[in-house]
Formats: sequence, C-alpha cells, structure tokens
Amino acid sequence: MRLKHVPGAEEAVADSPFVIGDETTHKGQWRAVFPEADPQAELYAELGCGKGQFLVQLAEAHPERLYLGVEMYSSVLLRAVEKQEEKNLPNLRFLRMDATYLTDVFAPGELSGIYCNFSDPWPKDRHAKRRLTSRQFLARYEQVLAPGAEVVFKTDNQGLFDFSLEEAEAAGWAVTHVTRDLHADAEAVKDNVMTEYEQKFAAEGVPICRLIMHPEH
Amino acid sequence: MRLKHVPGAEEAVADSPFVIGDETTHKGQWRAVFPEADPQAELYAELGCGKGQFLVQLAEAHPERLYLGVEMYSSVLLRAVEKQEEKNLPNLRFLRMDATYLTDVFAPGELSGIYCNFSDPWPKDRHAKRRLTSRQFLARYEQVLAPGAEVVFKTDNQGLFDFSLEEAEAAGWAVTHVTRDLHADAEAVKDNVMTEYEQKFAAEGVPICRLIMHPEH
Repeated sequence: MRLKHVPGAEEAVADSPFVIGDETTHKGQWRAVFPEADPQAELYAELGCGKGQFLVQLAEAHPERLYLGVEMYSSVLLRAVEKQEEKNLPNLRFLRMDATYLTDVFAPGELSGIYCNFSDPWPKDRHAKRRLTSRQFLARYEQVLAPGAEVVFKTDNQGLFDFSLEEAEAAGWAVTHVTRDLHADAEAVKDNVMTEYEQKFAAEGVPICRLIMHPEH
Repeated sequence: MRLKHVPGAEEAVADSPFVIGDETTHKGQWRAVFPEADPQAELYAELGCGKGQFLVQLAEAHPERLYLGVEMYSSVLLRAVEKQEEKNLPNLRFLRMDATYLTDVFAPGELSGIYCNFSDPWPKDRHAKRRLTSRQFLARYEQVLAPGAEVVFKTDNQGLFDFSLEEAEAAGWAVTHVTRDLHADAEAVKDNVMTEYEQKFAAEGVPICRLIMHPEH
C-alpha cells in the first residue's frame, strides 16, 4: 500500500461512528458493538483492510455475518470509512490499530475467521516477523480464532506466498486449500470477492495466490 | 504534530538499528537492548517523541540514564532516528508503537519516568480518552512506573493543561510541581530541555505549562 498523507485523516477516522475507538475495551464483547446483531453471529476480521472494497462487498453479500476492518493507517482507513458512509451497513465496523496487538483486543475464540489480502511483503529477511503470515502472527491468530475458524490469505507475491506456506507448516497449521492462480480456478474463484489490488492485477493477468489454513487446535 | 507522508519512512524506520522492532518481546528486559547498560540504570520513556530533539538532548545530558522514544508515526520518527544516526548515543533507542499498548510492552515498575511533551490535545470532549494525560492513560502509566517515578508533562495548550490537572486529581495522583509559565520560572526552567515546539513557542513568548505528577502507589 502506497501511503499518502491525508490532512485531517486521524481526526476524521476518530470521529466516524463506523470506527470503534478504545478498541481494547470490547474484548470478548465485540458482537455488542454492532447494532441489533445476533449475539451468536459469526465475526470476521480483515487485517490491513486498506480502502475497504473487499470488506464492503463481503458485508453486503453476508448480512448475517459481522465484519471488522483492521487498518493501521488513518489515511487509508479513511477511504474505507467513506465507502461505508455511503452504504451504512449494520454489519461492518472498523478499527484503527496495529494487528500486533490483536490478542489484547479480541478474546480467545472470538473471531470466526481472518482475512489477509495483499499484505505488506516486508521483503527483507530480518523483517519476516512483520509479515502477517509469519509464525509470530499465526500464534496470535491461534489465540483469537474459534475452533475450526480459518485464515484466508491472498497475494500476488510468490515469495510471500512460499514463505506463508512454510510458516503454516512450521506452526503446525493445516492448509486446506492452495492455488497459485485463483482466477484460473473456476471452483475456487466462485465466491471470491476482489480487493482493489486484485481487480487491477487480475485485469493485467497477474496470477493471484490464495491459501486457506487453520490452526490444528 | 502536522503529519507529512515521507515515502519509505516505514521501511527506513524498521531498518534502523536504533529502532527496536518486536517491541512486545522485551517486556521486563528493556535495559538489555542498550549496549553495555548498567542493569540498574534508570529507564525513561518519552511518549510521542516526535522529531527527537528533546530526547537526544536529554540522553546527551544524562549518559548514565537510558531513554526510549515512543512514537506512532514512522514519518515523524524517521527524523528522530536521523538525529540519532549522527549522534549514535548508546543510551537512546526508539519504538514505533501506539502508547495505548504500553502495558503490553513494559513490565510493572519497569520505567523510571515518563515524559509527555506537547501531545495531541484532541480538543473534542468525546476524544478525551485519547489524550495522553487522560485517566485512562494515567492508569496505564501507573502499571509500568516504578514506585516514586514521575510523569513530566509540558504543553502550551491551557485547556489540555486544565484537563490534565483534573485527571490527575480524579486518578488520585500527586501533583508535585505546577507552572503555567515555565520560562518565567528561573528555578523550574533550570534543567529544562526544550522540544522543537517549545523552542518556537518560547521565542514567540507563548507561555509553556508544565506539571510533574506521580501515582500515589
């Protein structure tokens, strides 16, 4: 994600009713931040939700599910918030936070699934821990995912994809689906919702890799 | 702090040997990240260290103490890191993190003091919890400060200063020094180290407020 400075983004994000401030105070009670949500509804998070296209579409397609978009950068998150301001979806909210602190914000088993889309590859070896599919992050996900809940990861970066498969194995996770060309796979692509990047890459013919994995609880 | 986007700032900050990555993995062992530090040395943090002038000067003046600059924004932190690259002070390191998660990063009693300088006033009432001197933040500081350790807070914002005094009282903290014109107070200003802002404000004759407080453990 190319970051641009957007003047006033911090305040606009803090002001939005769609962004949950004090994210550490809802641990174990996230479903309650959604108006009229079924207390048993499935709750999904996208880490690095960027400009929000993916999550807005998903939330529209699955009104019975709840979605949280997690994004560190206000300037980017603001774009997602603007999309939601038009849609006003009751099952979509956002958090401006660093995913490193996921376990402070979500209770054990609180999430029904996690999406990581086109996340920062951090190409240098010594930054591997910062990648959202590193064993360090998988260990965090394991703490907050419900039994059987999955992580769905998409990227156009082959090196990051290889790394992610290795980390899943090292962490003892089960990888249930792997494709290195999602858009050529009629079955896999059926329910696929595209991010802004993916749309651009797919149009250019860049193959998109996807894996689905879950901790072996 | 007016934020500007600095291309490559995230990576440059992540790359710097002066910025401690994986900040959650040093809890209780922060003194060990400083080369050749006395394991009993006092350890201070500045929250929102900005471009680093304050902390660089303080670290030069007190080589026997250890200093950590905490800053959320890479674009700003990069300027502090650049100052340190020239100085190479052994007792100064930086963390790129959100101060909200201070208690995940520091063990109880690990800090010998905290500095908050010209922090964001978040002028709207409903954003009060985000102010670094809110009771919510004081509760976090209380967990990581050593017995008797102080918070030193400076601002040019009278409203924020009033709020801070109220919050200190509400939190049951002891306020040991208060001045509403630091630079007119010969005794108080004696050991004062100025931030970039303070230098500018002081030159313009804007009064600087300062308070020193500590939790009543």
